Amino acid sequence: MFRSFCWPRSISFSRLVLAVGLLSLVGCGAPEATGAGQAVDAADASSSGGTTTGTPKAWAIAIHGGAGVIPKDIDPVQKEAYYAALREALTLGQEALDSGESSLDVVEKVVRKLEDAPQFNAGKGAVFTHDGKHALDAAIMDGSTLGVGAVTGVETVKNPISLARLVMTETRHVLLSGEGAEAFADTMELERVDAAYYFTQGRHDAWQRALAREKEEGEQRLMMDSAADDQASLEDARLGVEGSADWQNEKYGTVGVVALDRAGNLAAGTSTGGLTNKRWGRVGDVPIIGAGTYANDAACAVSGTGIGEQFIRHTVASDIAALVAYGDLSLADAAHKVVHEKLKPGDGGIIAVDPQGNLALVFNTAGMFRGAADADGRFDVAIWEDE
Amino acid sequence: MFRSFCWPRSISFSRLVLAVGLLSLVGCGAPEATGAGQAVDAADASSSGGTTTGTPKAWAIAIHGGAGVIPKDIDPVQKEAYYAALREALTLGQEALDSGESSLDVVEKVVRKLEDAPQFNAGKGAVFTHDGKHALDAAIMDGSTLGVGAVTGVETVKNPISLARLVMTETRHVLLSGEGAEAFADTMELERVDAAYYFTQGRHDAWQRALAREKEEGEQRLMMDSAADDQASLEDARLGVEGSADWQNEKYGTVGVVALDRAGNLAAGTSTGGLTNKRWGRVGDVPIIGAGTYANDAACAVSGTGIGEQFIRHTVASDIAALVAYGDLSLADAAHKVVHEKLKPGDGGIIAVDPQGNLALVFNTAGMFRGAADADGRFDVAIWEDE
Repeated sequence: MFRSFCWPRSISFSRLVLAVGLLSLVGCGAPEATGAGQAVDAADASSSGGTTTGTPKAWAIAIHGGAGVIPKDIDPVQKEAYYAALREALTLGQEALDSGESSLDVVEKVVRKLEDAPQFNAGKGAVFTHDGKHALDAAIMDGSTLGVGAVTGVETVKNPISLARLVMTETRHVLLSGEGAEAFADTMELERVDAAYYFTQGRHDAWQRALAREKEEGEQRLMMDSAADDQASLEDARLGVEGSADWQNEKYGTVGVVALDRAGNLAAGTSTGGLTNKRWGRVGDVPIIGAGTYANDAACAVSGTGIGEQFIRHTVASDIAALVAYGDLSLADAAHKVVHEKLKPGDGGIIAVDPQGNLALVFNTAGMFRGAADADGRFDVAIWEDE
Repeated sequence: MFRSFCWPRSISFSRLVLAVGLLSLVGCGAPEATGAGQAVDAADASSSGGTTTGTPKAWAIAIHGGAGVIPKDIDPVQKEAYYAALREALTLGQEALDSGESSLDVVEKVVRKLEDAPQFNAGKGAVFTHDGKHALDAAIMDGSTLGVGAVTGVETVKNPISLARLVMTETRHVLLSGEGAEAFADTMELERVDAAYYFTQGRHDAWQRALAREKEEGEQRLMMDSAADDQASLEDARLGVEGSADWQNEKYGTVGVVALDRAGNLAAGTSTGGLTNKRWGRVGDVPIIGAGTYANDAACAVSGTGIGEQFIRHTVASDIAALVAYGDLSLADAAHKVVHEKLKPGDGGIIAVDPQGNLALVFNTAGMFRGAADADGRFDVAIWEDE
C-alpha cells in the first residue's frame, strides 16, 4: 500500500534521452507528420467517429496542455517547443503503457512530465496569483476503484499530481487545501521547491499586465457585472479571435492525461496553476472530481481544460461519463454533446478514453495543445483544429 | 442584481414567533403527529413510490440535519429540541414557498435557520477542527441557471450559505477557499462573528475526546491503513450500531435544503462544519458541486450528508440527476440506486426534489434528521427510519 513518491532527480533526464530516441523510431520528428489521415480529433470532428470507433485497443492515452486562443503566427521556435513537450510526454506514456504499466502510474508519470515543462500552466511555468505567488491544484482518479486524491492551493510542491496521489493512497480524505495540504506534504517524502522554481518570465509579464489593467479599471472589474478584461478575453476566446499578443496570459495551459492500460483500467489526472492574477482563494475545476477530472472503468476517463467555473457548473467530466453509462452514447457523441451543446464556444475542451480505447479530444476554442496514442500505432500531437 | 444580505437581527425572532404560530395551525405540535400514513420516506422505502409519485405539486421542500447513528434512547428534551428545530425550519420554507418565493431564496433562508440552530454541525454548533477552530463549508445552486456559489474553510461568517450565494451572484467564480473567502467576505455586507459564536459544549467535548483518542493511538491513526477511531465509528455507522455515548462526535449534522417553487424552478443548498478534529485543510463533499450539492431544473435538486469522501468519489448528487435525466429512472429509484447500491451502508443519505414536486429522503444510516412538506399538505419531520 505504501509507496515512495520521492522520484530520483536523475530519472527526468534519462527519460528525456529515451523519449528522444523513441521519437525517431516512431517517425514523429516533425509535427507535420500528423497528416490528415491521422489527425487528432479536432473541435468539430468528434462525432464523426472516424478515429473514435473500431476494434478495441490494448491501451490508449491522450494528453492535453490547455485549450484557448492560440495564434497561428506564434514564433516557430516557441511552436516547436510546444510540439516537442507534447511529443516527449506522449512518448513517455506510450512506452509505459506498452510495457504494461498501470494507467494510474502512467497518468501520474506523464502529468509530472507536463508539470515539469515550462510551457504549460502547471508545476514549473504556473501562472502568478494576485499576490505574486503560485497556488497549484491537481487531482487524480483511479477508474478501477473510484479512488481519488486532490489538492488545491499548494505552494511548495514540485509535482502537485504526486501529492494528489498521496492524498488518495495515504489518507482517508479526497481533497486537501492550502496550508493544510502543505502540512500533509511535510509528512510525506516528496520533492519541495521554493517559489522561484515555478517562475517563468512570460507568466510574470502576464501577471504584471493583469495588475496594470486592474489598476486602470479599478477594483470593480472583479465583480461579475463589470466590463473586465477577464470577461473580454473570455469573449475573445468564445469568438475564436486569434493574434492577441496576450494570448498566453490568462487561463490556459492546464495539463491533463487520461489512459487505458493493458489490464483494462482507466485513470485520469489534471494539474494547473489556475487563473493569472486569481485571488480570494479561487478554486477552479481541476481538483473538483466530476468537473475537471473523472475516471470510472464503467464509462470513461476525462480530463478538462478551460473556464473552470463553466466546467464546475456543468459537471463536465462526470456528465460525459453519465451520458456514456446511462445515455447510451458513444464516447465521441457524449463528449461532443457536452462540449458543443452544454458549454459555450470558447469555454475549453476535454480529452477522454473509454474501456475500448476509443479516444476523444474535443474543444470549442480555437486550439488545444494535445496528443493521442494507442496500441494500434496511433501517435500524433496537434494544437489547432485543422491539423 | 445586487442584493443586501445583511439581514436585520430582529428577523430571526419574529420568524420564530411566526413559525410557532404556524405549527399549531398545521397540527404538528408533536413529532408523534407524523404517523405511519404520512411517514417521511425512510431508508428502504424510497423505491416504494408511495410518497414520491402522483400528481405534480405546486411546490415542495425537503430538509436534512445530518445522517448517522442516532441512539433512540437520547434524552427526551434533546430529542424534542431536534424535532422543534426541524419543524421550525420546515415551517419557514413551507410558508415562503406557499407565498411564491423563489426556491433559491427559500433554500438560502432555510439553510440559514438550520445554521443558526445549535443542534446541527453548521454555523452555530459547528464541530472543532484539530486546531480548535471552526472551518465552515457551504454551497448553493440554482437549478434554473446552473448558477453556483460555494465556500470552504470560512471562519468568521455567521451564515456561510449566504456567502456562497454572494460568490454566485457577485463574482465570476464558483468556489472560494480559506483566507481568500474571508477576504471576499470583507468586501460584502454580511454578518461576521468571532470563533466564540460557533461554540457549543457538546462539540467542544467531542473534540477533546477525539484529541485524547488521537494521543493514545498516535499519529499514524490518521493514515488510511491504521485502525482508527474514525474508521471504527464509520464501521459502527455502517453496521447500524446504536447507543454509542459518542454518537454526536464526528461527522454528522450537516444541514441541507432542496426546494421546488411555484415557478417550477429547483434549488439546493448545503452547509457544514465538516469533521470533528479535521486537519490538513480537508474539504468534504458539501462545496463540491455534483457531490454534496446539485440542482438542475432538467432533472432534480439534491443535498447530501454523510461520509464526504464517499459522496465525492461517487459524485452522488449529480449521479442521481444523471440517472433521472439520462437513465429514465424516477427520482425515488435514482436516489435508491445511488444510496443503496453505489454507496456503502453507513455512508449517509440525501434529500431530493424533482420538477413535479416528488420528494426523496433516502439514507443508509440508522437515522437522518429530516423533514418534508409540499403544496398538497404534507408536513412531517422524522429522525429514524421507522417513523
